[in-house]
Formats: sequence, structure tokens, C-alpha cells
Amino acid sequence: MDNLALMESISQKNEQKILLVVMDGLGGLSNPATGKTELETANIPNLDKLANRSACGLSIPVAYGITPGSGPAHLSLFGYDPLKYQIGRGVLEALGIGMELGKNDLCARANFATMDYSTGKVIDRRAGRLPTEKNKELCAKISSKIKKTGDVEIIIRPAKGHRFVVVFRGDGLSENVTENDPQKENNPPNKIQAGSVSKSSAGEGLPDAAADAKKTAGLLNAFLTQVQEIIKNEKPANYILMRGFSKYPDIPQMGQAYKLNPAAIATYPMYKGLAQLVGMKILNAGETLSSEIETLKREYANHDFFYFHIKDTDAMGEDGNFDGKVKKFEEIDRYIPELLSLKPDVMIITGDHSTPAVIKGHSWHPVPFMLMSKWTAGGEVSRFTERECLRGSLGTFHATSAMSLAMAHSLKLAKFGA
Amino acid sequence: MDNLALMESISQKNEQKILLVVMDGLGGLSNPATGKTELETANIPNLDKLANRSACGLSIPVAYGITPGSGPAHLSLFGYDPLKYQIGRGVLEALGIGMELGKNDLCARANFATMDYSTGKVIDRRAGRLPTEKNKELCAKISSKIKKTGDVEIIIRPAKGHRFVVVFRGDGLSENVTENDPQKENNPPNKIQAGSVSKSSAGEGLPDAAADAKKTAGLLNAFLTQVQEIIKNEKPANYILMRGFSKYPDIPQMGQAYKLNPAAIATYPMYKGLAQLVGMKILNAGETLSSEIETLKREYANHDFFYFHIKDTDAMGEDGNFDGKVKKFEEIDRYIPELLSLKPDVMIITGDHSTPAVIKGHSWHPVPFMLMSKWTAGGEVSRFTERECLRGSLGTFHATSAMSLAMAHSLKLAKFGA
Repeated sequence: MDNLALMESISQKNEQKILLVVMDGLGGLSNPATGKTELETANIPNLDKLANRSACGLSIPVAYGITPGSGPAHLSLFGYDPLKYQIGRGVLEALGIGMELGKNDLCARANFATMDYSTGKVIDRRAGRLPTEKNKELCAKISSKIKKTGDVEIIIRPAKGHRFVVVFRGDGLSENVTENDPQKENNPPNKIQAGSVSKSSAGEGLPDAAADAKKTAGLLNAFLTQVQEIIKNEKPANYILMRGFSKYPDIPQMGQAYKLNPAAIATYPMYKGLAQLVGMKILNAGETLSSEIETLKREYANHDFFYFHIKDTDAMGEDGNFDGKVKKFEEIDRYIPELLSLKPDVMIITGDHSTPAVIKGHSWHPVPFMLMSKWTAGGEVSRFTERECLRGSLGTFHATSAMSLAMAHSLKLAKFGA
Repeated sequence: MDNLALMESISQKNEQKILLVVMDGLGGLSNPATGKTELETANIPNLDKLANRSACGLSIPVAYGITPGSGPAHLSLFGYDPLKYQIGRGVLEALGIGMELGKNDLCARANFATMDYSTGKVIDRRAGRLPTEKNKELCAKISSKIKKTGDVEIIIRPAKGHRFVVVFRGDGLSENVTENDPQKENNPPNKIQAGSVSKSSAGEGLPDAAADAKKTAGLLNAFLTQVQEIIKNEKPANYILMRGFSKYPDIPQMGQAYKLNPAAIATYPMYKGLAQLVGMKILNAGETLSSEIETLKREYANHDFFYFHIKDTDAMGEDGNFDGKVKKFEEIDRYIPELLSLKPDVMIITGDHSTPAVIKGHSWHPVPFMLMSKWTAGGEVSRFTERECLRGSLGTFHATSAMSLAMAHSLKLAKFGA
């Protein structure tokens, strides 16, 4: 019995409300100059005070040493085993910009990129971080010229910056193909090929699966050639890179597993897509932390679970902006009284993973976690930091337990066994 | 997806070097006279200082409460689920003394023992810890007289002290047989019998498997009778005990799972055998800690992963020699600067299991663990002891995560998921 099945077997509905606040990329590492992490440096009196009232700990998003992408890290926080439920980037991006997907649709996350056609090398994987307006213009241009590749329908939608989504709609498309993105600049793009089918997953379907993968790879390469003809003279976005080929997964819904009526408040496509995948209602939350808070207040009566996502902390970490991340924490801290004024029965504040500014990217380090409810003793820690959370009563634990703890502290779980 | 499959899916090669130092039987318990453990008693300033710079924790070799043998304890440290990959003692001993094994070979770890033929009881399971020279002489004598038992070839090789290895080479041999070693002295040896075949592992091969086990048991008893005829008048080694009947397992290789070029530095056969089994190159490391260090320095440029095994700490624990174990720690401590002078990117210092002198044997207690790298915050603990490591950021964790942590901190793992 996995965690979700256990939850479904003992979860029960009541009026109590759970607020799960996720500061993306929360955890950090010491600034070599001061020996203090971003959280240790920040002046965050409200978060510190809350931590002192809470049950605290450090969460492991996927497993020790594993640096998670946003998808698996969030699935863990929602109680899903991220090694069991693996979801492609293409699907997440498509859902995040509000595309309706069918079961057979193959989705790709795509970037506009800059190719040096004289050498055949990709010299900028993000086409100078293309402005969204230019992205929309190019997507419209390509869409108007390519409706189909072979017998497969092509749907192209812009996302933010240099990012867009391509959905391939047709029969017999396979996720099991390689990507043309070379991952590193100054390399030629890869030719898309059928992936290797492992013996264990192949079974009797092997010949069909292999044929589908081969057909799909051919189709994708043909599509790339079509696109190249259309944009090769553009500057700087004269090429596209595709990755994360994936179809809609069959995944349990939070409403059923937890008997919750869950809603998501997020500003970025990826996180809305993820929330929709697990069955949350996506609320229109605007673009800022302030509009997210307003959304929460406005909708507070209508749901018993809110996933509240804050993106900027991760972005600062990714940029290696230690001081910027510190300032974001201080900004968020000023909103804490507003969250508390709603009197949630359970409020968790944590991250999906760590993004230490000194690493300039996601990392494997455990993530500070606090859970406030009437049923926590408190007095474990004096600050909301990595080192203090280590002393908390929850210890270092798997993030897949976060929802179980939220459910327990809101008295939504019946006794297990007689 | 098990841990090794996960590693294989995201591991990537780089130039960084990992040094895994295993002090066998590291963990201890308090001396009742002082209330301090072996580590707490030892003057180990270099290890303490290193612990202060490191991420620390306590590792559970197999599971809470489980006292591991050296095989499972080491497999865990190498990232293998020790409950999934079970390897017989016979195979380990055979590999450790450099024997080449075929797929069908059945290996046994054997002891020279002393039998009181008047009562039929084993009065010394180690024949007074027989000198290696006498062991060699007896093995040569038996080898010269027994080439075959039935149609099965017999290969006998001496190891250290009273220990030797017997390899049975032929078709249809089964691991599923009991042992003649009574485990306790002043008991008669057991007759070797076919083991019970559990339904779950039997499947359609049941009748054949049972027949093979029965045939093998008969063969082993016949061999014991042959040996007895040859040595019954020797003193004190007039009998042999066999255990750990096993064949070469099908186990993933570290080179493939981690994309490492791993090497092992160890002085004892068992540990070399284990390292070879998981695909490490066995370096010629001599017989002492000093020669092991020289080997590491000499070969440092040639590998990106070193398993460095120190046996003496366990031997002292097994002998109940508390002060001897303390002195060994102090001796090892003096070599720490030499290890650091190589500037490994990641250095883990831990044990495979605990061997508290007060228990005089392996135990189930969690094992002190420290990992030093550029990406650890440090400042968690002030000493390298059982009680201090408990305060570390790694918490109490499964030893199978040790390699994941080493890989992460040497930046050899790609992000998991998008």
C-alpha cells in the first residue's frame, strides 16, 4: 500500500483548512564571507516567531543526494512518490499555460534558440532570453504556416520569455524519443531518435512500441525542418530546441486521496500545471505575491486546502543573488501576519527544494519545514533556518510525509487499524 | 526504480574525486567505568576538526536493530540494497584470496577446527586460531589427495589463520544447503542437508531445485568424510567446518551505475572480494595502514573513487579491547592530514557497522558518518563521536544513501526530473 492509498483509506472530510506555503528553492548554504545562509542572514521576525510555535524539521524532496526538478519536488510535497509518478516537462508546461490535453497528445517543452548556421552549433539556448512579445509573434507565425506534419496535428502556444509548447496530436505517438537540445551551448543540436526500450518495460508490446518511437522521431525531425525553414532568417531566434516529450499521465487525484477540495495559487505556468495534474482548482492569482495574497483571501471560504506558491526565492537562488534572496525572504515575512489573520487550522511553510545562491541552481540539500497547528507543542527552535530546523521534532524526513502531517494536524485522518 | 537504477539514470562523469574511508566496526558504546564510548575517549583532534567542517549524521547499515555482517554492511555503503543483493560468505572469501570463479561454482568458507572424536563434539571452532603456515600445509595435503568428489572438481585454497576456501566445480550444484558448523563449541557438527525451498522462490523449477539441493548435500557430506580420513590424526586441526555455501551473484557494477572508475584499498581478503564483486579495481595495498596510505597516494591520479578500508578498529572491538580500539582511532587520526593533503573533492569517513568493545562483536547501533566537501555548511558538531553525529544535518539515515550523497557533493548527479 503506497502513501496515497493509505491516505485514501483513512482520510475524512471536515471543516478545517490547510494552507501549504511553498517558497520555491527555500533552502540555502552559507555565504563564505559570513558563514550564514540566506535564511540566517535575513531579518524575518514573523517567520522566526512562527517557527517557534511550530513543529519543525528538514525535508528530503526525493532522496538523499538527489537534486530534484520542480515536478518531482512538488509531487513529493503533495504526497506522491516522485520515483513512481514521473511526469514530463512537456505535459507540465502545456498544462501550465492552460492547454487542454487529450490522452494521446505528445507534448514538448520548446525554447527559441540561436543557431550559428555556418558552424551548425547552438550558440544561445535561450535566444538571449527572448522577450515574451517576440515569442508570441514567432509562435503565431509558425502556427499560421504549420498546421500538420504528416498526418499529425501541430498546436503551438507561447509561454514566458523564450519558452513555448508544442503539442503533437495524433495516433501512435511515443514519449520514448531523445531530445534535440544539446544542453550545453556551442554544440550542434542532436538528431531526435527513438529511445532505447528497456527489457523490463517492454514486454509483449515491444515491436509496436519500437515502431511508434521510430515513427515519432521521424515526425519530430520533419517538424524541426519545417520550423527551420520559417525562422532561419530571424534574429536572434532562428532555431528551436525541444525536450521533455511526454503524454498525460494517469495519476491519482488529491480530491479522492485526501477528500479535500484543493486549490492552487501560483503565478508561474509550471506550478499551475502541476497542481492541475493532481486535481487542484487553479485560481486566478495574478502575477505578484500581493495579488496571490488577495486571491487567497477572496477564495478562502471556498476550499479546504490551498497550495500557495512563491516563485521569486528560487529565481534569486538560480541567479546566484544571495542578497536578493535574503530581501525576498524579508518581503515575504511582512505578509505572514496577513496569512495568520485567516486563521488556517494548519499552515505549513516550506520549500520544494533548496536553491543555494552559492550553487546557482537547485540542490540536494534538505529543506527547512515548519507546521503550525493547535496540535504542535512548539518551543523547538528559535529561528526559521536550516540549522535550527535540524533541531525540530520532525527530524530529517521525506517530503512525501508533508501532506500526511497536514492531514493529521487538521484531524482529517482516522485511526489506522483497530 | 531502486537506488542503483536511479543513480544510473542521472549519474554523470566529471573530474572530481571521492574518497570513502571505512573504519570497520567504527561505532561503539560507553565504557561503564567512564560513560564514554571509544570515540569519545580517543584523542582525535584531526577527526574532530574535520567533523566540524562536515555534514554529519548516523547511518543505519541495513535496518533498525539489524546487526550486519561485513558483506551487507559494505554493500549498503556502496549503494546496494543489502536485502535485495545477498552474497554468500563463501563467494566473498574466494574472491578475496584472488580465486577466479565460474558461474556454476559453489563456494564455501571453511575453518580448520578441533574435534573430540571420543564425544563427536567440536571443541574448538578455530583449531586454536591455527597459524597460516600450518593452514597452508594442511590445504596442500588435502588438495593432493582429493581432486574430485564424485564428478565434481574440488579446489582448496588457504586464507589467513584457520580459514580456507573450498570451491566445488560442477553442474547442478545448489546454494540451498545447510551448514555443518554448529556455531557454538562443545556441540556436534550438523549433518549437511538440503534446505527448505520456499514457495515464493521455487516456481516451476521446484523439482529440479530440490533434487539439486539434495544431491549437493550428499556430495558435501561425502567430501567431509574424505577430508576427515586425511586429517583426523592431526593436532589441533583434525576437522573442518563449512559455511556460507554460495555462488557468484548477478549484481550491477559501480562503473555502470555511477559512471565511476572505482578502486579499492584494503588489506583483508573479504573486503577485496566485496569490492571486486561490485566492479572496483583492487589495488595492491600491502598489509598496513601506512602501506594503504602509500597506495592511495601512488594511485590517486588513476581513479575518481577510492574505497579505503581500515580493518583494525573492528578487530579490537571484536576482541573486547576498548583501549586498543581507542589507540587505533588515535593512530588513524595521525594519518588524516595525509588524506587531506590529496585534496579529495568529497571525503566520507564512516564505518560499515558498529563493533562496541563492550559487546565484543558487530552490533546494530547506528554508525558515525561525516562527509566533507565544498558544499557542506559545517558547524554542526564539535567532535567525531556517536552522540555528536546525532546533531548533524544528515540525521539518522540509511547507509544506502552514502553514495548518493558522495555523488551529489561531487556534482556527479544531474537533476532528477524537470
